[in-house]
Amino acid sequence: MDTAPADITDNGGLRIIPLGGLGEIGLNMMAYEHGEDIIVADCGLMFPEPQMLGIDLVIPDIAYLRERAGRVRGILLTHGHEDHIGALPYVLQELSLPLYGTALTLGFIREKLKEFDLEGEVELNVVKPRDVVTLGCFSVEFIRVSHSIVDGCALAIRTPEGVVIHTGDFKIDQTPVDGELTDLATFSRYGDEGVLALLADSTNVEREGYTLSERVVGEAFDEIFPRCEGRIIVAAFSSNIHRVQQAVDAAVRCGRKVLLNGRSMVANVAIARQLGYLRMPEGVLTDLKELQHLPKEQVCMITTGSQGEPMSSLARIAMDDHKQIKLEAGDTVILSSRFIPGNEKTISDLINHLYRRGAEVFHEKVSEVHVSGHASQEELKLMLNLTRPRHFVPVHGEYRHLVKHARLAQRVGVPAERCLVAVNGDVIRFADGRGEIAGTVESGRVYIDGKGIGDVGEVVLKDRKHLSEDGMVVVIIAINQASGEVIYGPDIVSRGFVFEDESQQYLDETKKIVLDLLAGMNIETLGEWGEVKQEVRRILRRFFNKTIERRPVILPVILEM
Amino acid sequence: MDTAPADITDNGGLRIIPLGGLGEIGLNMMAYEHGEDIIVADCGLMFPEPQMLGIDLVIPDIAYLRERAGRVRGILLTHGHEDHIGALPYVLQELSLPLYGTALTLGFIREKLKEFDLEGEVELNVVKPRDVVTLGCFSVEFIRVSHSIVDGCALAIRTPEGVVIHTGDFKIDQTPVDGELTDLATFSRYGDEGVLALLADSTNVEREGYTLSERVVGEAFDEIFPRCEGRIIVAAFSSNIHRVQQAVDAAVRCGRKVLLNGRSMVANVAIARQLGYLRMPEGVLTDLKELQHLPKEQVCMITTGSQGEPMSSLARIAMDDHKQIKLEAGDTVILSSRFIPGNEKTISDLINHLYRRGAEVFHEKVSEVHVSGHASQEELKLMLNLTRPRHFVPVHGEYRHLVKHARLAQRVGVPAERCLVAVNGDVIRFADGRGEIAGTVESGRVYIDGKGIGDVGEVVLKDRKHLSEDGMVVVIIAINQASGEVIYGPDIVSRGFVFEDESQQYLDETKKIVLDLLAGMNIETLGEWGEVKQEVRRILRRFFNKTIERRPVILPVILEM
Repeated sequence: MDTAPADITDNGGLRIIPLGGLGEIGLNMMAYEHGEDIIVADCGLMFPEPQMLGIDLVIPDIAYLRERAGRVRGILLTHGHEDHIGALPYVLQELSLPLYGTALTLGFIREKLKEFDLEGEVELNVVKPRDVVTLGCFSVEFIRVSHSIVDGCALAIRTPEGVVIHTGDFKIDQTPVDGELTDLATFSRYGDEGVLALLADSTNVEREGYTLSERVVGEAFDEIFPRCEGRIIVAAFSSNIHRVQQAVDAAVRCGRKVLLNGRSMVANVAIARQLGYLRMPEGVLTDLKELQHLPKEQVCMITTGSQGEPMSSLARIAMDDHKQIKLEAGDTVILSSRFIPGNEKTISDLINHLYRRGAEVFHEKVSEVHVSGHASQEELKLMLNLTRPRHFVPVHGEYRHLVKHARLAQRVGVPAERCLVAVNGDVIRFADGRGEIAGTVESGRVYIDGKGIGDVGEVVLKDRKHLSEDGMVVVIIAINQASGEVIYGPDIVSRGFVFEDESQQYLDETKKIVLDLLAGMNIETLGEWGEVKQEVRRILRRFFNKTIERRPVILPVILEM
Repeated sequence: MDTAPADITDNGGLRIIPLGGLGEIGLNMMAYEHGEDIIVADCGLMFPEPQMLGIDLVIPDIAYLRERAGRVRGILLTHGHEDHIGALPYVLQELSLPLYGTALTLGFIREKLKEFDLEGEVELNVVKPRDVVTLGCFSVEFIRVSHSIVDGCALAIRTPEGVVIHTGDFKIDQTPVDGELTDLATFSRYGDEGVLALLADSTNVEREGYTLSERVVGEAFDEIFPRCEGRIIVAAFSSNIHRVQQAVDAAVRCGRKVLLNGRSMVANVAIARQLGYLRMPEGVLTDLKELQHLPKEQVCMITTGSQGEPMSSLARIAMDDHKQIKLEAGDTVILSSRFIPGNEKTISDLINHLYRRGAEVFHEKVSEVHVSGHASQEELKLMLNLTRPRHFVPVHGEYRHLVKHARLAQRVGVPAERCLVAVNGDVIRFADGRGEIAGTVESGRVYIDGKGIGDVGEVVLKDRKHLSEDGMVVVIIAINQASGEVIYGPDIVSRGFVFEDESQQYLDETKKIVLDLLAGMNIETLGEWGEVKQEVRRILRRFFNKTIERRPVILPVILEM
């Protein structure tokens, strides 16, 4: 029985509700609801932004689904990137739902579920492109698309109100490494039949023209590798199996053995090989032990760490802090991945350190060693023209991307009033062939910090920010409950605030200010320690600000004894 | 009398010592030393990097100059950017030295000195291009260069060992806004005479071709402005007087009045107008009061805040949190400045908020509304070919820029062994026409935090980082000195760590663990509180890590009573 409260906004029709990914990059999750049925497309996470201090991961708030748990029929996964599958282990702890996706996508998910001891508890349904899955009143066809991960699919969701095309992340690579083309024919077929709405990836809407084919990177490898006299290190995302394939192929052509490095690289390559997505000649792989005896011109390391993550092997190699691998002049490092916004400084530091070691470095800003997995403007127009949707909803993007994608749709003929720019929590409702933004539901971000899910909120983050800027000063005073007399202290302890290196005099002055304050207060009659604490805080805040222009967190502790 | 210790490395010849700016962007400061004379070129600051939590500014460590204060003859300023003049107020508090620079450069410096109550105490010597200043054994000619600030100069430093060309920041703009061309003739003249060493700006060495002329931005303004139906807001660096000039000119041509916004914008425009570097027709300026009555198509605001600084007017306008200015559909914002690395996320947020307000936004990634002030590869080659230096020292750049600039010099004919890649603190020594890196001296970075100069070091920053990640837990216990009995507590206070929202049970459990620990210790005989504190820290660290996987700073406070 479904005991969820009746929905005020549920006035029939098809309701599409973005729970993440609209107005932000990452956290992709979309609910489709009609009558008593809800299906969900993707369930992604986001890596924390700089202001989310100490946070490990961010997942979407699924309050809307939790309250309607009995109606949710399953989760469809478009592809295996973290921003589309990463929240699954958390969401599946609350909602027990079957999953539908292609073999590699589910292979990556299975690995993830193992880590959370959820493997046996989740129903995994492998689908192939052009397979159709029926869930309640919805039937969903998976459509092959190319992207920076293999085995990606778009979804054609047949609903009682019409067909919705949900692209997921895609590009239209005319020469994909595995020959698996974006299935233009199926998109066209739906276009002929009539599409109620197209929901399309907006990530690269600011880029003109076409996104380069993944093969371009293989060509760049084939140009760079033969000229290298020392070791070659290729850093890439471990999920980018085609990238790994091309690096392996280039290594083999130059007579180099391949060392895989990084936990996720080793795991993902194993999954991809097992499922037949990655071909490696016998004997091409080597290990750290054999590496010691190989001439350096026979070595190619394929590793994670392309974002300059300080704990990665690559960062340690760059800092000359790796036990087995010491870089020398003549070695080459290829950062075959995007500079993710927010990581530019860390990556730049990594590159500088690699140059200090004498290595040559190739990266996306100076060489074609990376291409995007997302469609540029001409591909987005092509998708619009193939599907000829009645309505258009830009997805996967920050707000400006959504606005620009809506404008692009208008340029290829979708009327402005049928381009719906929605953000997370908006209810996009379709009924009788008409679409509108019909209201909003609860949505948001949930922070994961260690084992805590959602317990760290804005107040804690604000405190962490405050602590990070000027540290903390704790003032401890013990007071005789009866007489109001100070019997201990003030004792002062600080962290991240400078007393240690300062003169004893400054510390003494601080204590004196507190004592003078207390002497002037009629503590006996106050009966309210909160007020004393507030006064201590106020007077010290003023003192520190005047003397040293710093604003530490001030924490008065008063012991009544 | 100079009482500085004898220099171990002072074995004659010319010594060039970078105290900042080599191996980093910012902090530019270079000492030239020969015999008993030292002169300094530039004295810049750096804005803090993300890991420098709570730090306001960074300046170079001038220990080397401090110990030789009696020999320093003066500071030459190439131009008025913060990364070349920003450390002056701090350095001049320690070293009383005459300054030499062009009118605008000194105009900006004078404003800065006023803020620090140093105005009357510093000797400011205005020079014009081609003027020669003699300081000890050095004579220095100022040479006009174009850059993203007006009135910039390179230096030709005549030393007993030969002439050194110190470019400062430069580009070779063939059509500068004020017609003041980079003085190619003078560079050529020195090339004919013979140049011992060229020290040249490496900032843009990774860019091929030529940097676009500043005029391109004016052309972009003239294309965008007439199409705008609402308000226009141009955000730019306040020191970029030519940029401001071009925005004013474009506004005037469209019949718009100009509102200057931002403290430094108002100040710098005033200085530039007073010195004749900026021409504004009578009556073009307006104020916030008049603005309320102007039709929006007659408004052009020129403002700071292009980096998304959260306290700036522009950020407040974007957040719809500005009293006088509310953006509407049809308004246009032009971010006419660089996305400074590290600020991408903040700027991206700003742009998204502006789109939410309905504004159209132009910025350097989508339109030619910004050009760099630094020479690209072809200009750098031109500088090398004009001066034909015997030695080449790349300056102003991260390590990879220096390496790449040295390679570029080799491609235009400087032998590899005469390209000296040095970093801060290296002593570049020239004697008898030969150059080498002859040793190192004390150098580094000094952090400014509030009024504190250099008191915040790596330990404090490490504490702040730790605090920022998982907050802080203070454990307070009072113990009877005689009996070792716990007479109060443990009391537990936290910030940035979650107890508040957790169950009381978790807090009680934490207290119990501490009490159990104390009960098991023979406190009387310990006599050493340090050990008790250490144990409390150890046991709680383990407990928090196991239960919630967080690692707060744990601060035990033990009161002996």
